[in-house]
Amino acid sequence: MKQLSRRTPSKIVLLVIDGIGGLPHPETGKTELAAAVTPNLDQLAAGGVCGLVDPVAPGITPGSAPGHAALFGYDPLSIEIGRGILEAVGIDYDLQPGDVAARGNFCGVDGVGLITDRRAGRIPTDKCSELCRRLDGFVTNDITVSVRPIREHRFVAVFRGDGLAPDVTENDPQELGVAPLPVEALSLASTRTASAANAFIEHVRTTLAGDRPANMALLRGFSTRPVFDQIPDVYKLTPAAVSVYPMYRGLARLTGMEAIEAGATVADEVEALRHHWDGYDFFFVHVKGADSAGEDGDFERKVAAIEEVDRVISALLELHPDVLVITGDHSTPAKLSGHSWHPVPLLLSAETCRPDGVTAFAETNCSAGGLGQFPAVRIMALVMAHAKKLAKFGA
Amino acid sequence: MKQLSRRTPSKIVLLVIDGIGGLPHPETGKTELAAAVTPNLDQLAAGGVCGLVDPVAPGITPGSAPGHAALFGYDPLSIEIGRGILEAVGIDYDLQPGDVAARGNFCGVDGVGLITDRRAGRIPTDKCSELCRRLDGFVTNDITVSVRPIREHRFVAVFRGDGLAPDVTENDPQELGVAPLPVEALSLASTRTASAANAFIEHVRTTLAGDRPANMALLRGFSTRPVFDQIPDVYKLTPAAVSVYPMYRGLARLTGMEAIEAGATVADEVEALRHHWDGYDFFFVHVKGADSAGEDGDFERKVAAIEEVDRVISALLELHPDVLVITGDHSTPAKLSGHSWHPVPLLLSAETCRPDGVTAFAETNCSAGGLGQFPAVRIMALVMAHAKKLAKFGA
Repeated sequence: MKQLSRRTPSKIVLLVIDGIGGLPHPETGKTELAAAVTPNLDQLAAGGVCGLVDPVAPGITPGSAPGHAALFGYDPLSIEIGRGILEAVGIDYDLQPGDVAARGNFCGVDGVGLITDRRAGRIPTDKCSELCRRLDGFVTNDITVSVRPIREHRFVAVFRGDGLAPDVTENDPQELGVAPLPVEALSLASTRTASAANAFIEHVRTTLAGDRPANMALLRGFSTRPVFDQIPDVYKLTPAAVSVYPMYRGLARLTGMEAIEAGATVADEVEALRHHWDGYDFFFVHVKGADSAGEDGDFERKVAAIEEVDRVISALLELHPDVLVITGDHSTPAKLSGHSWHPVPLLLSAETCRPDGVTAFAETNCSAGGLGQFPAVRIMALVMAHAKKLAKFGA
Repeated sequence: MKQLSRRTPSKIVLLVIDGIGGLPHPETGKTELAAAVTPNLDQLAAGGVCGLVDPVAPGITPGSAPGHAALFGYDPLSIEIGRGILEAVGIDYDLQPGDVAARGNFCGVDGVGLITDRRAGRIPTDKCSELCRRLDGFVTNDITVSVRPIREHRFVAVFRGDGLAPDVTENDPQELGVAPLPVEALSLASTRTASAANAFIEHVRTTLAGDRPANMALLRGFSTRPVFDQIPDVYKLTPAAVSVYPMYRGLARLTGMEAIEAGATVADEVEALRHHWDGYDFFFVHVKGADSAGEDGDFERKVAAIEEVDRVISALLELHPDVLVITGDHSTPAKLSGHSWHPVPLLLSAETCRPDGVTAFAETNCSAGGLGQFPAVRIMALVMAHAKKLAKFGA
């Protein structure tokens, strides 16, 4: 891809409707996407080409990270994003190469140090923030530990300094009535990480000694930023990411995209695109509503979230993207109240589409679409081709 | 898959109609499956989701072993089942790890030991059984050789003892007028096998010295049991296999399934399922009739065999499997009187199916199905997903 890609003035929009795929409502037999009134999406489908994508593989239910990795052109099976990194990314923390991040739980220990509550009674987020402020900025052996609250008892600790590696054991014994474990290095390269982690844990113990119910910390999922080939290098794109949720901005930033600010609605996101239209040639736009409604098992709210997207399509088309691709990172059927393995509808609109007879954007229509059913990791090449950003392969 | 699979109470039935796929009758233009009157299968297709599977790859005609390996979730190209092992499996022989099996032919040699008939005049199976009884149980160097008849001049010899490896040469020169070859070790690990094989062949020579026309044996296809990841480990299933033919029970046993006994008809097989329903959560049911009829080029008999399956569907549904998948290990068009490379129709019935507009179970309908055309090795993940036995992949 790196050999074939070339810079051109054409512009690409990848609109990700998180959790877009669904299952039929038992009364109507229609999925959320089929039930939604989407005249603009249907018109795009009629003029473009449709298909279904498997984010990871048939039968596999993807998390958000592998789902997006595939959309961004990475083999989701070869990408591993550790829990610590994902938490850091999820709060927009500016991770640097070499940082080691761990997910933390504040917990409670008794007078002799045995764990009495692994979640410290799920302390309020405000309390967590206060504890993090008191612990933040600890320095040991030229390693600085940044501590940031996530939610309730959860926080993230980021170790920054030379010579850190993530392969250390966790101090969380995952049971009550025992003491937290020492963090141990699993290789020579991670001895500095293990020492810093143990020093930090001791710092927590002494700093919070007088606190109740949170007076200790359990650390898990030590990890470093995954090494993604950067999108600007591989595709010669200048990519931007628009998302209300920091998790998706963070994932995009790991691939070399720049995050641009937007308001809370889908219309605000399109407005942000308009504002930054001249500065980039690839826009990843993440829309969350359909997934949240699906997770809540709320069929009607998911329908409404999809219809909200439909209403901004004309504003999006006024920007005249050369390629507009609309899909999801996974399905989230309201019927299952969660992510699912079902393949995800995809719509590609460009001047170079071969018509396929699909006239509505919905799962069953897409399954008869001209793109067939294919792995989501292949989308980027298709998009680049329709944007005329790929040279011929071979003589 | 091992990381994602989890044990749940849901039950899966994999109904394999051997050789189900076909080609159109020249007079009607309908395949065997399309011509068969199958109201129950059609109703399942209407409520479920259909597709076509490639057992190995487009254009590749599968044998029974790779065809079933793919259905059981193994890459058929990475699985090798030696001829000796397949013969042993085919007679329900209880193979143990470390056993080396060889396929044998009784043959005829002249007074100086030169081969005069490589098949000993295709002696009757009764005679073969008698010869096997006389040779069975030979012991050399702490290695026991079990000898079992297959059919006519064919038998299987299973070498059991410590330190056996299968990489030895064959003693069959594959021509007349020459002496059988010595068996030679191809590695240090197989020296004991080669010695035992040569001792056994000498045992045949002396034991059968006075016999005509079978007075010698040719051994081929020395092999050990392939090391399959076991289905109970990988999928956390308790799987059972129902088949009238020992070959398929044997293949299933290699994957960790338990074989359960059944009578000779398809209805008997479903009755066996009913009897054992509480003891297992995955049932592989093998139905042979359609393949046998296809091999014989008997279009009408293949139609009747498919209709026989249709008549037991209601009894099967009374068991309320959570996932029912109906497919074949390969196509066997009557027109070709043999296995073929054509993709195989597949029907998946579960509460979590996305409707696809297919209302009849036949090849052409399935090619427009919601599952598209995909490699058979992917079926197990799909089935596990619909049975809600797979956790989410990635955060």
